[in-house]
Amino acid sequence: MKRTSKAEQAADAIIEALPYFKHFAGKTVVIKYGGSAQVDAGLRRNVCEDLVLMEAVGIRTVLIHGGGPEISEMLGRLGKETKFVEGLRVTDEETAEVAEMVLVGKINKGLVAEINLAGGRAIGLSGRDGNLVWARRAKPVAVNGENVDLGQVGQPRKINPEILADLIEKHYIPVVAPTGMGPSGEMLNINGDAVAGHIAASLKAEKMIFLTDQVGVLAEVGNPETLISEIRVEEIEGMTRRGIISKGMIPKMESARHALEGGVKSVHIIDGRVPHALLLELFTSEGVGTMIRR
Amino acid sequence: MKRTSKAEQAADAIIEALPYFKHFAGKTVVIKYGGSAQVDAGLRRNVCEDLVLMEAVGIRTVLIHGGGPEISEMLGRLGKETKFVEGLRVTDEETAEVAEMVLVGKINKGLVAEINLAGGRAIGLSGRDGNLVWARRAKPVAVNGENVDLGQVGQPRKINPEILADLIEKHYIPVVAPTGMGPSGEMLNINGDAVAGHIAASLKAEKMIFLTDQVGVLAEVGNPETLISEIRVEEIEGMTRRGIISKGMIPKMESARHALEGGVKSVHIIDGRVPHALLLELFTSEGVGTMIRR
Amino acid sequence: MKRTSKAEQAADAIIEALPYFKHFAGKTVVIKYGGSAQVDAGLRRNVCEDLVLMEAVGIRTVLIHGGGPEISEMLGRLGKETKFVEGLRVTDEETAEVAEMVLVGKINKGLVAEINLAGGRAIGLSGRDGNLVWARRAKPVAVNGENVDLGQVGQPRKINPEILADLIEKHYIPVVAPTGMGPSGEMLNINGDAVAGHIAASLKAEKMIFLTDQVGVLAEVGNPETLISEIRVEEIEGMTRRGIISKGMIPKMESARHALEGGVKSVHIIDGRVPHALLLELFTSEGVGTMIRR
Amino acid sequence: MKRTSKAEQAADAIIEALPYFKHFAGKTVVIKYGGSAQVDAGLRRNVCEDLVLMEAVGIRTVLIHGGGPEISEMLGRLGKETKFVEGLRVTDEETAEVAEMVLVGKINKGLVAEINLAGGRAIGLSGRDGNLVWARRAKPVAVNGENVDLGQVGQPRKINPEILADLIEKHYIPVVAPTGMGPSGEMLNINGDAVAGHIAASLKAEKMIFLTDQVGVLAEVGNPETLISEIRVEEIEGMTRRGIISKGMIPKMESARHALEGGVKSVHIIDGRVPHALLLELFTSEGVGTMIRR
Amino acid sequence: MKRTSKAEQAADAIIEALPYFKHFAGKTVVIKYGGSAQVDAGLRRNVCEDLVLMEAVGIRTVLIHGGGPEISEMLGRLGKETKFVEGLRVTDEETAEVAEMVLVGKINKGLVAEINLAGGRAIGLSGRDGNLVWARRAKPVAVNGENVDLGQVGQPRKINPEILADLIEKHYIPVVAPTGMGPSGEMLNINGDAVAGHIAASLKAEKMIFLTDQVGVLAEVGNPETLISEIRVEEIEGMTRRGIISKGMIPKMESARHALEGGVKSVHIIDGRVPHALLLELFTSEGVGTMIRR
Amino acid sequence: MKRTSKAEQAADAIIEALPYFKHFAGKTVVIKYGGSAQVDAGLRRNVCEDLVLMEAVGIRTVLIHGGGPEISEMLGRLGKETKFVEGLRVTDEETAEVAEMVLVGKINKGLVAEINLAGGRAIGLSGRDGNLVWARRAKPVAVNGENVDLGQVGQPRKINPEILADLIEKHYIPVVAPTGMGPSGEMLNINGDAVAGHIAASLKAEKMIFLTDQVGVLAEVGNPETLISEIRVEEIEGMTRRGIISKGMIPKMESARHALEGGVKSVHIIDGRVPHALLLELFTSEGVGTMIRR
Repeated sequence: MKRTSKAEQAADAIIEALPYFKHFAGKTVVIKYGGSAQVDAGLRRNVCEDLVLMEAVGIRTVLIHGGGPEISEMLGRLGKETKFVEGLRVTDEETAEVAEMVLVGKINKGLVAEINLAGGRAIGLSGRDGNLVWARRAKPVAVNGENVDLGQVGQPRKINPEILADLIEKHYIPVVAPTGMGPSGEMLNINGDAVAGHIAASLKAEKMIFLTDQVGVLAEVGNPETLISEIRVEEIEGMTRRGIISKGMIPKMESARHALEGGVKSVHIIDGRVPHALLLELFTSEGVGTMIRR
Repeated sequence: MKRTSKAEQAADAIIEALPYFKHFAGKTVVIKYGGSAQVDAGLRRNVCEDLVLMEAVGIRTVLIHGGGPEISEMLGRLGKETKFVEGLRVTDEETAEVAEMVLVGKINKGLVAEINLAGGRAIGLSGRDGNLVWARRAKPVAVNGENVDLGQVGQPRKINPEILADLIEKHYIPVVAPTGMGPSGEMLNINGDAVAGHIAASLKAEKMIFLTDQVGVLAEVGNPETLISEIRVEEIEGMTRRGIISKGMIPKMESARHALEGGVKSVHIIDGRVPHALLLELFTSEGVGTMIRR
Repeated sequence: MKRTSKAEQAADAIIEALPYFKHFAGKTVVIKYGGSAQVDAGLRRNVCEDLVLMEAVGIRTVLIHGGGPEISEMLGRLGKETKFVEGLRVTDEETAEVAEMVLVGKINKGLVAEINLAGGRAIGLSGRDGNLVWARRAKPVAVNGENVDLGQVGQPRKINPEILADLIEKHYIPVVAPTGMGPSGEMLNINGDAVAGHIAASLKAEKMIFLTDQVGVLAEVGNPETLISEIRVEEIEGMTRRGIISKGMIPKMESARHALEGGVKSVHIIDGRVPHALLLELFTSEGVGTMIRR
Repeated sequence: MKRTSKAEQAADAIIEALPYFKHFAGKTVVIKYGGSAQVDAGLRRNVCEDLVLMEAVGIRTVLIHGGGPEISEMLGRLGKETKFVEGLRVTDEETAEVAEMVLVGKINKGLVAEINLAGGRAIGLSGRDGNLVWARRAKPVAVNGENVDLGQVGQPRKINPEILADLIEKHYIPVVAPTGMGPSGEMLNINGDAVAGHIAASLKAEKMIFLTDQVGVLAEVGNPETLISEIRVEEIEGMTRRGIISKGMIPKMESARHALEGGVKSVHIIDGRVPHALLLELFTSEGVGTMIRR
Repeated sequence: MKRTSKAEQAADAIIEALPYFKHFAGKTVVIKYGGSAQVDAGLRRNVCEDLVLMEAVGIRTVLIHGGGPEISEMLGRLGKETKFVEGLRVTDEETAEVAEMVLVGKINKGLVAEINLAGGRAIGLSGRDGNLVWARRAKPVAVNGENVDLGQVGQPRKINPEILADLIEKHYIPVVAPTGMGPSGEMLNINGDAVAGHIAASLKAEKMIFLTDQVGVLAEVGNPETLISEIRVEEIEGMTRRGIISKGMIPKMESARHALEGGVKSVHIIDGRVPHALLLELFTSEGVGTMIRR
Repeated sequence: MKRTSKAEQAADAIIEALPYFKHFAGKTVVIKYGGSAQVDAGLRRNVCEDLVLMEAVGIRTVLIHGGGPEISEMLGRLGKETKFVEGLRVTDEETAEVAEMVLVGKINKGLVAEINLAGGRAIGLSGRDGNLVWARRAKPVAVNGENVDLGQVGQPRKINPEILADLIEKHYIPVVAPTGMGPSGEMLNINGDAVAGHIAASLKAEKMIFLTDQVGVLAEVGNPETLISEIRVEEIEGMTRRGIISKGMIPKMESARHALEGGVKSVHIIDGRVPHALLLELFTSEGVGTMIRR
């Protein structure tokens, strides 16, 4: 009797994942799924399968997604111009309406459907559902000595994680769009990394994972050989000053710091372009990307 | 000591509502909130307050909303023309995307925020969240001897009410956009009245209420004095033949029939232009609108 | 379509009560219903309706009643004379037997039946049921240099609120007669205000309300225009010295102090001669009577 | 080491009770404790101890008591004459008031206190508490061709045993006075045997036990040697015709028949003048009194 | 960035197992682990890991083990001869004692320890623990016209699966030795296959798996190429008559029939000499061994 | 009617036990049942009945047994010689295997069956089941200047009492064999007194009782008249020095000290040769044996 090599290897792979299954069972993992990492349909399907698997082996799983590129595209179709001030989109009422429609009505539901097709039970939430994210308006930004109001842009003020806990307990996978509820109930657009960090902290998650389109934090720009595999939270400031942490990494590091200070055990920046990167990170001994910890 | 007449009347009103509070405690009421009835901001706020009150006195409350007019408006802004075939919107992929964005990303979240501001805890859901509404594609329609495919238009095939039950049990108010999940996970646009009837049946609701911009079913078109206060389900067919039930009332009556056959106790068509029409219907002896029952 | 003004006002009244419904949901309110306030049958029916409404909107409701006048009346019918020493009834064994019969077998059951007729589920308890109130005997009182034993008169020594909590949790309304269990299991007659204060403290109630036949505490005897709307607990002593607090108000204030020190948020003395005074106090912005707080 | 004979015998007695403890654990036993059997203080203390023991070893225990003699005595003290018609007390309003006071305010609370002193947690209930016994008024009785209205005398119409179940589950011992709630909420006086039978049936009790001042049913009046140890329910009618069942035994047999038809396994008439008669019946192989079964 | 082929394959293998994880979550799988299949230490470790994995992904897992060879070996060391009658060991009192010691005190605890080392929480049970297996004594066997009593050999009479359900619910893995409790409480030795079938039926298991040292049922003795992959329960009789089912397969088929008739969905005979044969059977599309179904 | 004196005494005995039943209800009692005390079959049956009774009246009961003599006997039958070093059995692999078989496969199951026959639901556990007792290997003992390895002899390192709590809660009686799981999962033989003390401490038991073949601790060897009825934990050291505590009493006292320091209320050494000694100790006022307390 001869067994096919493939099935044999499959059984070995599963059994090697056993200690990880056991370790994470009942723990919470928060994933920030960046807009750029969502572009490839095949990889997106992979991510959704990974989420369903995580839930199936008992991980309490929450997904936060981004969506900047698609908002810009829709604004373009509507002939609406957007100003950026210091990298932040000035969000007037019409822009806000479009942003919410794209984030909540398009990207969020697309991910929900894809997770459900993969066998999961996803529920899409915005920051206004169940009062999940209460937000304050961002302060005006000084440009050439003049204060520019950013409009409906916000920062998390208070997270009410009950709705997440209630859904997780019933074996749903919450999928959260990065918006918040402002002082008058209005939608505020919030940086997705910030939302993820606040939610991870409010849930005292075991891990927060940024699924990005980068290898991780690199000591030398553009050189993946210089991947930094571990960063202590107290190193962030110096690395930012030295420019190692820059651009899109800055809000991720801010979010990581907030999460770690709030009780999250570790934060990971991994490369979503690698198929099943989440599984590799969680269930194999392969270290991928950069880990930030206290 | 003299008490102001107003407070005295308030206490009387509350105590008169007591038998209704007790009757509906723990029962489920499904409300279909039509797009036309949502236009007036003051009335919309009234409706949201009424929903919060219903939940506060122990009614298991579910809201389904419509949104046709706003979809058309957004399509217009995008310069997208829509064809209608026998009153149904031919929904190509772009139209479908816009419809979902408007329904789920705009109208739904607007209602969620308004309910939350009134003190409730609303959660917005589309038909794809938690596999709530599985739908089949509508059959092509024959036009001049030619079959026209309606595109992403659907009919409810199966309701999975667990997510509603789970949320209600935790004292959330689910707010449902009228969409469904098609065979490949794609969004299908569904008539809101049909979604309401299927959901009410799946929950064995005590009551389903259509909150419309009409007085109810009228024996004589345009004459509110001819309001028909009660219709038996077996009368629907004849009244439709005689033209008393026509246009927008037809899907409402179809929905009512489906709900009543599925175990709902009564269905009501009431006038959402009356302030607090829901409270009047539920908590006072005033009969308003038309009741349909078996 | 024209709506009658009355229904419109009813809906408005109910919706204005919404924030109060929400505030008190799940909270405990203890009511002391004085014997004098129970005389009028119509008002008594009002009170019972109010209690049922409170329970219906989620308030954990406990009623303690008094009954002095009816005890005297029954003693009279039996030709039994009673001595009073410093306002306290000297309670020999026969008097005690009559007192318990009247309190527990007549007044208590009358209120229970009336609440049940109004749609509630009341359970009458004496201080001996479920060991609810363990009491010590009152000390003898010196009269003309001689110690007079008051007989079966007591003071609360220990409250076992489990039976109240068990009943409330199952949506019953406990109705408590002001008696206690003495060292040998014998009934001791206790001042109803004192029982109410001890029970409110043991339940960490949100509010304790004295439903009396007075407007509240008056700065000038007999002049309702001089109603004092708020008293801080530390003011009680001075006001008693100055005679503003006197006679029947003294045990109420003692009870209020005990309750507030035990964690009750506020104590109210309101006028039970006003119809639905409880609803006015709880569910409208009308301030009635005197509030005592820390 | 020599053990005293007494302790040795105690251990043997306890271990012999083990199979009975196990058999009755979790089962319901309803006891009707007749007024005549309550006279002796020492025996009454025994009964209360027995009830506490029953609860301690896991029996769901409910006590119904009677009280005719004490009502008559109190009426006498009040100088109130009572008419009897065919053995039933004509109960006008004043008589009803006295009856309820004595049953609920005196006898019931006395038993409650005695059980609590023995280490139990008793709760006294009348038929009006928690809507336990809804009753209809007894029909007028024809006397000399004239219908005499019995006044506030009733028969059980509907038992709501939830309050008993709720209390038992929390390890309280319910002690029930034989009254009911009439159509207008008024107290109706009911035969205690009838109340016991209806309650036993509503709880599907394992056993109902009448604790009486008689040896059991005797074949020959007054001759305890002729005790009938077992009666089948279908024999009742014949034995009544032959006069073997007569007087006070008649309502007991009616009650037994009702209980057995409602699902109670067996009914026992035992001699409460024997110390710890309940324990003998339940926990030893000694047969005492008369058993009635299907 | 290049990922090692091994980790990539691991992730793929895990994700391919996802539908199986989801299918079996919450279902019960009973495994009979034959004595011969336990010989190889490495394979035994594999089996224990597989059990832990099964429990980790939510399968309610029960193991029944055999042990014939080790009993014989221990009897040999004690110089005790055993007679066999028609393949059944004549089990006198001394043999029974040794059998129980070996099965329960050695094999069972060895497996328990090995599962615990692999990260599980196993509890060893004999048929006498928690009254799990009540057994009747086997009938004497006629040998040369003479009835030979088999001694302490039994057949399952009644399974009390509560202890298994209680342990599974708390995430333990029950490991059951094939013994039963006889009429006087004595140990009876039972065929392990029979115990497994009765337990699987009592739990309404989804699957029962025989982990053997054979490829499955072969159409031609000794020729693995003639493996029969599926047998319908009604084919068993004919196949036995034709000798295809013979020797050790006979009790397995009896057990399978009993299980299937008791509600088990399918029974599998698989080759325990293949590493991780359980995982292959449960979590891959590779069919292994023989399946028996209705 | 005359009652037999025996039944009368039985009822009295039971009612006298009532305060003890109530006191111990819901409390945990751990019993160490020594090997020598198990010899007499009649007494063993008594003990098992006592355990079932304890469970029936609500005591959370755990039994730990010993078994030295039977291990020696079996080793003898196998012709295996055992060396003792300072009273400890040198346990090579073969000895260990025999010890576990005898303890777990014979003595433990015998007690389980006997308890079950008495009407209980016992579950036998070894220290390896459910990781109950993790143990470290005992240190080598110096003999004539040479270190002698004791082999598979251990000391409790960590108790995981969850399995005991889970079983007790479901009304099983756990019966524990004195073994532990060593660093590699191997069985380690542990002194039963030590196991009992560690388990009692881990469960914060109310009482631990040593059921021995001695009267208790005697001031004068062999003279039962000199029984010491109470020892404070701080007296142990001095009494050991003075030789009052010696031989088999030493590990018992060590165990008692450990238990008392871990929160156990009292420890008792009683004479298992007295019928129903457990019941006498628990349920009568007869003091038996020696009590050790803080």
